[in-house]
Amino acid sequence: MRYAIGLEYDGSEFLGWQIQDKGPTVQSCIETAVAKVADHPARVTCCGRTDTGVHALGQVAHFDSDSQRSERNWILGLNSQLPRGVSVLWICQVGDAFHARFSAFSRCYRYRLLNRWIRPAIDARRLSWCRVPLSADKMHQAAQSLLGEHDFTSFRASACQARHAVREIQAIEVKRDGDVVTLEVSANGFLYHMVRNIAGSLLKIGSGERPVEWLAELLDLRDREQAAPTASPEGLYFVGARYPEEFDLPTSGLAFPRGWNLS
Amino acid sequence: MRYAIGLEYDGSEFLGWQIQDKGPTVQSCIETAVAKVADHPARVTCCGRTDTGVHALGQVAHFDSDSQRSERNWILGLNSQLPRGVSVLWICQVGDAFHARFSAFSRCYRYRLLNRWIRPAIDARRLSWCRVPLSADKMHQAAQSLLGEHDFTSFRASACQARHAVREIQAIEVKRDGDVVTLEVSANGFLYHMVRNIAGSLLKIGSGERPVEWLAELLDLRDREQAAPTASPEGLYFVGARYPEEFDLPTSGLAFPRGWNLS
Repeated sequence: MRYAIGLEYDGSEFLGWQIQDKGPTVQSCIETAVAKVADHPARVTCCGRTDTGVHALGQVAHFDSDSQRSERNWILGLNSQLPRGVSVLWICQVGDAFHARFSAFSRCYRYRLLNRWIRPAIDARRLSWCRVPLSADKMHQAAQSLLGEHDFTSFRASACQARHAVREIQAIEVKRDGDVVTLEVSANGFLYHMVRNIAGSLLKIGSGERPVEWLAELLDLRDREQAAPTASPEGLYFVGARYPEEFDLPTSGLAFPRGWNLS
Repeated sequence: MRYAIGLEYDGSEFLGWQIQDKGPTVQSCIETAVAKVADHPARVTCCGRTDTGVHALGQVAHFDSDSQRSERNWILGLNSQLPRGVSVLWICQVGDAFHARFSAFSRCYRYRLLNRWIRPAIDARRLSWCRVPLSADKMHQAAQSLLGEHDFTSFRASACQARHAVREIQAIEVKRDGDVVTLEVSANGFLYHMVRNIAGSLLKIGSGERPVEWLAELLDLRDREQAAPTASPEGLYFVGARYPEEFDLPTSGLAFPRGWNLS
């Protein structure tokens, strides 16, 4: 049987999603927890492999198990085996056709940065930081030029292993709330470092170093060398993914699921 | 010359404010930084000594120094010497009559808790957690009975060293924003663990375990044994303090101070 799970994690506690020898990763923690609760080893595959320091509000993953556990026991069991920086928000049984990565038709990332001249202390690991005043309006205006299907070579890291650089941006928005400027992007898929590379170039526009038109020019150039450096990972969040309705996934972890015995 | 400073810190990185042998404290970090920038040792005294795990958005402290530094150089110098979890937000020269603790006529604390059945991951160290559904309205209603001057013995930790337990609560509010329930309290002063003890008893009311009237009854009993256990520290923030106008302190760190060269 295949299970889909929803995950929240603090990326500052892990060396990214993917298993590696150098230290704890989200995947290694989840696989260890699933092995304990399911009582057998299991591979866990996620929707969007996040880098070191990148967070998730609604990561989606799947694994296979024939162990019989109630929804409640899966969730409580997994969370009791996981370190503090990662929580399973929901779990549901899905058909074998479901694949956390390949079935998703839309992903959403959020990039948050503190825009004040003093660095963040409380959210030092969960907010990026720009000390120069930014115009969120100009950033938003520039970002609109990325809407639709384009070749995003200019915003693709050299280590990217995707077959091609064409992606469709479905929505992109930059807004300010007090000292915090937020970029939110939805696309059918993302290239390696794509959001942080877009954020890096938008910062140059927001600070006035480059004109609003620069982002469209960069896109046309299809040259990573011309764009700004990659923005830092602390402010990046994998917000969530969308799947065909037939899989009937919860859109978010419910605060208090209907009929749940909370006692 | 006496200087007042405003501080933001992530309490999860420190063993509270006060210097101790067991590990890093906010005070020890600030005193080390001031000694480097001022080029002489200095004692730093704060408005509200926070416990291990308790955060500050607007802690106020003072120290004495005759070293000549511009406002900009004090701030950049101190922040360059401080660990990532603490930032100096502002500094200003004050008269010798100023005392961060004794001159304050009002302090404000905020207690934030995540109210969902899944524990927090991203803000595990910055939010308390209650898995049982809470009525913020009932908590708010109950909290109003604490307004004004009262003997707060029922909400005073046994280790409290204050001479008496009479304090004046100037404002108290409980509200919900999505999954987060926030308690905010302003008072002329607080007893040891007072906010966390009030929060602990309000939780029993919010969950329905105790009636709304229970908080007023507890207050009248003047008996710590009758009240609920102390709520956990992760969700507690020292928000700020108020001082007589004559000291002319900034009310908050400005995002971009007027006339500041941001280059």
